[in-house]
Amino acid sequence: MAFTPTQEFFIEMAQIAAQQSLPYFRTALVVDNKQAQGFDPVTQADRDTENALRNFIRTRRPQDGIIGEEWGSEGENQEHVWVIDPIDGTRAYVAGLPSWGTLVGLMQQSRAVAGMMAQPYTGDLFFANQEGSFFTRLDAKGASTKRQKLSVSQTTDLAQASLFTTTPSLFEAKQFPNFARLRHNVRQARFGGDCYAFAMLAAGFIDLVIEIDLQSYDIVALVPIIEQAGGIVTCLDGSRPEAGGNIIAAATPQLYEQALQYNLTV
Amino acid sequence: MAFTPTQEFFIEMAQIAAQQSLPYFRTALVVDNKQAQGFDPVTQADRDTENALRNFIRTRRPQDGIIGEEWGSEGENQEHVWVIDPIDGTRAYVAGLPSWGTLVGLMQQSRAVAGMMAQPYTGDLFFANQEGSFFTRLDAKGASTKRQKLSVSQTTDLAQASLFTTTPSLFEAKQFPNFARLRHNVRQARFGGDCYAFAMLAAGFIDLVIEIDLQSYDIVALVPIIEQAGGIVTCLDGSRPEAGGNIIAAATPQLYEQALQYNLTV
Repeated sequence: MAFTPTQEFFIEMAQIAAQQSLPYFRTALVVDNKQAQGFDPVTQADRDTENALRNFIRTRRPQDGIIGEEWGSEGENQEHVWVIDPIDGTRAYVAGLPSWGTLVGLMQQSRAVAGMMAQPYTGDLFFANQEGSFFTRLDAKGASTKRQKLSVSQTTDLAQASLFTTTPSLFEAKQFPNFARLRHNVRQARFGGDCYAFAMLAAGFIDLVIEIDLQSYDIVALVPIIEQAGGIVTCLDGSRPEAGGNIIAAATPQLYEQALQYNLTV
Repeated sequence: MAFTPTQEFFIEMAQIAAQQSLPYFRTALVVDNKQAQGFDPVTQADRDTENALRNFIRTRRPQDGIIGEEWGSEGENQEHVWVIDPIDGTRAYVAGLPSWGTLVGLMQQSRAVAGMMAQPYTGDLFFANQEGSFFTRLDAKGASTKRQKLSVSQTTDLAQASLFTTTPSLFEAKQFPNFARLRHNVRQARFGGDCYAFAMLAAGFIDLVIEIDLQSYDIVALVPIIEQAGGIVTCLDGSRPEAGGNIIAAATPQLYEQALQYNLTV
């Protein structure tokens, strides 16, 4: 029996995640724990946020499975499986930049059907369910603005496209000569952005995103947000993206085909 | 006669800038003007924001000069000269990412002595005056949180340092082999961040920032924020950074010296 989370369900999860992730964000501004903090991307916030989300899901959807970055898998053969990345963009988080986000996706029979990207410092909430792909903004009390339907850009010409990627190794021309050719043939290539880049592709502000070596929990939540907004997201070999790997997302079929002609094998 | 802007002066400027820059941010979410918008980084927001800031400065400090990205220079030989980048990170702005900021710096006899970086979507305001370097956060009505004093990290070992840069060309190993060597010898290198990277260096979350081909208005506002927080910022040849160029900012003298040993000439 198909299940789809409501907007209220997503907002509840976004609030739960914010309660756990925000207290640790930029803590060195008030507590001088820089040395102790180090660069371990698995912060306390990561663990606490996933734990709280798992407890919420277990209570509300006890029959479903859960896969998370921090706390592993349970019930992964159930019809519905939730996939959690509590803090996607841990390096941005550690650096104090507000480009990280909490990702929660829902798979039905291994296919991503719903998901959210929540950024608690800005209050941005992108989500998709069977009604479509949407944006709303939450204030500190959880009140939300009127939701706006997301749709991808109409860009069809690679020379007019904006391309985002986060992965530093993609800039090594020696390693990825075909990526170097691609990025010189788009209108602009930009770097960083983390999960925001995929969300902004769904919102129509970015035309193409390519990321290497993603995990399942890095992408499942974003797939429905992109697809319900009219975009395409697959692995570079054209297969479904739910298992992670090397991922391409494009606003239009034309851009997708043009980019794949660069033979971006790694 | 030396002049230093108060916190209230910075907050007024941040509010004026927000009124002009926010209405155009992510407008394609509500108005489908993606085709008309294109990628021209000189958005209407850029021009309106600088114009409003110039009017404010002219009213409050009529004796001072002003240099801006959009509307040129006036009175640039005055003792005090304001330097404005209305939207630093226009590409992030166009992409809908909240990593852009409004920069306003103050030079006295060509030396940067005060400045602010304001990000109106998050409400973040970083500023420096003769009292030090500070962070506060503004809400939509301009109310601010208790200010926090900024101080750089204590990192002295390059192998423990985090390095940020935005400029894509720095990743071309062929063009910048010494940069490639440097970035493989730090703890982590990350890309993007725009003016936030310098602000977060001042706040102690990032240890090293290197940017190529900056204009004066890209850096003057950030110099006092970094210096008053205990950091170092110069051109790669060791000269003062107020005129722009190739810029290095470091949390400690030890990191600064170690990075310069890589002979990062361009």
